[in-house]
Amino acid sequence: MPSAEELDATDPLRAKRQQFHLPPGTIYLDGNSLGPMPLAARERAREVVEQQWAADLITSWNQHAWIDLPETVGEKIAPLLGAGPGQVICCDSISVNLFKLLAAALRLNPGRNRILSQQDNFPTDLYVSQGLSQLLGHENCELVTVAKNEIESALGEDIAVLLLTQVNFRSGYAHDIQRMTELAHAKGILVVWDLAHSAGVMPLELDRWNVDFAVGCGYKYLNGGPGAPAFLYAAKTHQGELHQPIAGWMGHQNPFAFDSEYQASGDIKQFLAGTPPILSMSVLDAALSVYSDIAIDDVREKSLGLADFFALRVAQAPELSSLKLASPLDHDQRGGQLAYEHDHAYAICQALIAEGVIADFRSPNILRFGFSPLYLSYQDIAVATARLGKILATEQFLQPEFNRKNKVT
Amino acid sequence: MPSAEELDATDPLRAKRQQFHLPPGTIYLDGNSLGPMPLAARERAREVVEQQWAADLITSWNQHAWIDLPETVGEKIAPLLGAGPGQVICCDSISVNLFKLLAAALRLNPGRNRILSQQDNFPTDLYVSQGLSQLLGHENCELVTVAKNEIESALGEDIAVLLLTQVNFRSGYAHDIQRMTELAHAKGILVVWDLAHSAGVMPLELDRWNVDFAVGCGYKYLNGGPGAPAFLYAAKTHQGELHQPIAGWMGHQNPFAFDSEYQASGDIKQFLAGTPPILSMSVLDAALSVYSDIAIDDVREKSLGLADFFALRVAQAPELSSLKLASPLDHDQRGGQLAYEHDHAYAICQALIAEGVIADFRSPNILRFGFSPLYLSYQDIAVATARLGKILATEQFLQPEFNRKNKVT
Repeated sequence: MPSAEELDATDPLRAKRQQFHLPPGTIYLDGNSLGPMPLAARERAREVVEQQWAADLITSWNQHAWIDLPETVGEKIAPLLGAGPGQVICCDSISVNLFKLLAAALRLNPGRNRILSQQDNFPTDLYVSQGLSQLLGHENCELVTVAKNEIESALGEDIAVLLLTQVNFRSGYAHDIQRMTELAHAKGILVVWDLAHSAGVMPLELDRWNVDFAVGCGYKYLNGGPGAPAFLYAAKTHQGELHQPIAGWMGHQNPFAFDSEYQASGDIKQFLAGTPPILSMSVLDAALSVYSDIAIDDVREKSLGLADFFALRVAQAPELSSLKLASPLDHDQRGGQLAYEHDHAYAICQALIAEGVIADFRSPNILRFGFSPLYLSYQDIAVATARLGKILATEQFLQPEFNRKNKVT
Repeated sequence: MPSAEELDATDPLRAKRQQFHLPPGTIYLDGNSLGPMPLAARERAREVVEQQWAADLITSWNQHAWIDLPETVGEKIAPLLGAGPGQVICCDSISVNLFKLLAAALRLNPGRNRILSQQDNFPTDLYVSQGLSQLLGHENCELVTVAKNEIESALGEDIAVLLLTQVNFRSGYAHDIQRMTELAHAKGILVVWDLAHSAGVMPLELDRWNVDFAVGCGYKYLNGGPGAPAFLYAAKTHQGELHQPIAGWMGHQNPFAFDSEYQASGDIKQFLAGTPPILSMSVLDAALSVYSDIAIDDVREKSLGLADFFALRVAQAPELSSLKLASPLDHDQRGGQLAYEHDHAYAICQALIAEGVIADFRSPNILRFGFSPLYLSYQDIAVATARLGKILATEQFLQPEFNRKNKVT
């Protein structure tokens, strides 16, 4: 195995780190929860607040094209998804976008009422389905959840929509989107993919894979800032015939005519609802510039490389033997993160943060590490695993300060 | 009539202007469309981006209480609405919040299917109702719209929900919320008030008036920045029994337990859906500090004073006789803005902007002026009406440059 230094020396993405601010001494393995700040994001935040808003005021809607931002940002995300133009838009949150898409997809598949999903899908995907079911009645919308290995056999002609998250938020297991989409389509099922932990770190080919709909997140691997708006993909083939239920004015074909009858925009803009949060969306727009000159295949290759390097270090260190890997090591079956189980996962996570290594805890016992290749080096991984080893060897995580629960864990 | 100078000298709010940035030479009569930047907002934007995000990263959800922001901001808005604690939350957009509330309100009033609204309500209110109707079927949800003077007689026992905007976006006409709510309740109708053009400029007493539900806007009189998140009011009395349909994880009673079954938070947080846009919401939070030491009655009194002064100047100037007032002058019937009709309203608005007076055009022929008393002086109004007079006297608005339509008008 080459050394961390050797791996870094040949890393085609190593210069990307200069485009980010990371606090000195911090190794940030939590980009899959909140990406760090690209320098371009800081500049844009200043520009939008201190120039566009402060000086140009309301005229900025035209002058600085605020009105186009949902599309502008959507088109910047599209290449990362393998999506041609006019199919991706930035708006609202994943939860709100899932609500729109699930309602629209059910309507496109009349005579069927079931949404099939995975028991351990990210909860908001299940909650939104449950909320829609309660609104429409079980006879019109029913959520069915099964274990991961039961999904294929559950794809029957009673299912209207298959709703899956590509990369599981706990285990990091990655579905084969192409294969699952094909299996679903063969049974007349529409697919909605949640790409929260995929976009920006996994190569995606939504058009080529004939995906119907997808949603994803702006604040994880896309580094768009805390609570950055989400995105939504709707294949062109569906855009002419669907009805998304949150018919806000920004989705109207001519919002500034102020007609009293809703006429949905005929294109991807029909998924817009209210006025978008311009500051947050502008910052995401700027953050995406980091991706403008790199290949997503390089990103994926390095992400796997970093994770493999991490897993190897853990496997080789006797003091880390109490960490139990909960993610697949097979490259075809994993996203950009690794999960380890440990009874003291929460306290270890807090102790790591105190040592400058930022990871995630996921209830009840998961330590989650995200390998975002834009700002991480192999030497970072070497240092992080060494610090983790020290924490476990000395049991410093048992100190009371690391065992006080925070609101967000 | 006292002079502008005399009126400014006794203005109890005159020092507030120092808390805002306004471009030199600009008179901003468009605060009812996008409020200008409070200095505190600029500071907070820098702090959230350059310190909280950049340096403290994911730990900010706890360390800087990002997770509490929807409630924190809600509680700062509450006093401006006359709302006791635990009833206002900041989230999403007006459109999305109306969708949640209308669906919940219909369910609270079983056996009735009609939403009654006003023909010239702001379009998104009508669109959201139409979208909900299409989703649920007309037998479960039907929008009925009538003219303003027909609302009272339409309040029958077939109506489930009365949905009105207090201050009309075009005319500035203001409904008497207390009276309309009483009339609606007498017929067993629930009310949803849209306070987009009210919050921050009109004294409101939602609790005392027994209002059921309300929504409002963060970016107009509250000066929260472009597309700032909206707010939502739900009376405590309804919180225990309702179901809002967009059941996202932030509305769960324990989001970080990652349960697979949605259990709505028992309080106002049940209206949250996805992860909030922290940058935009933080800036709104800071902007609200402007209101911390002033009385909303003083705000209202000065807003009316500024508008009256404006209307008097227009009425007395022969060169302004082609402007036709389209707003009521009666204080009890008007919000914070004045509308004037003119065949060349669009071009006049553009010519005014070129002269440093920023107003709004609303299709087809309305010039709209907002009188936000926190940063406007009577001398501003004197200058604005003088510039308006010059533009009309010289017909400079006929120049081609003022007649090219923008995307947002």
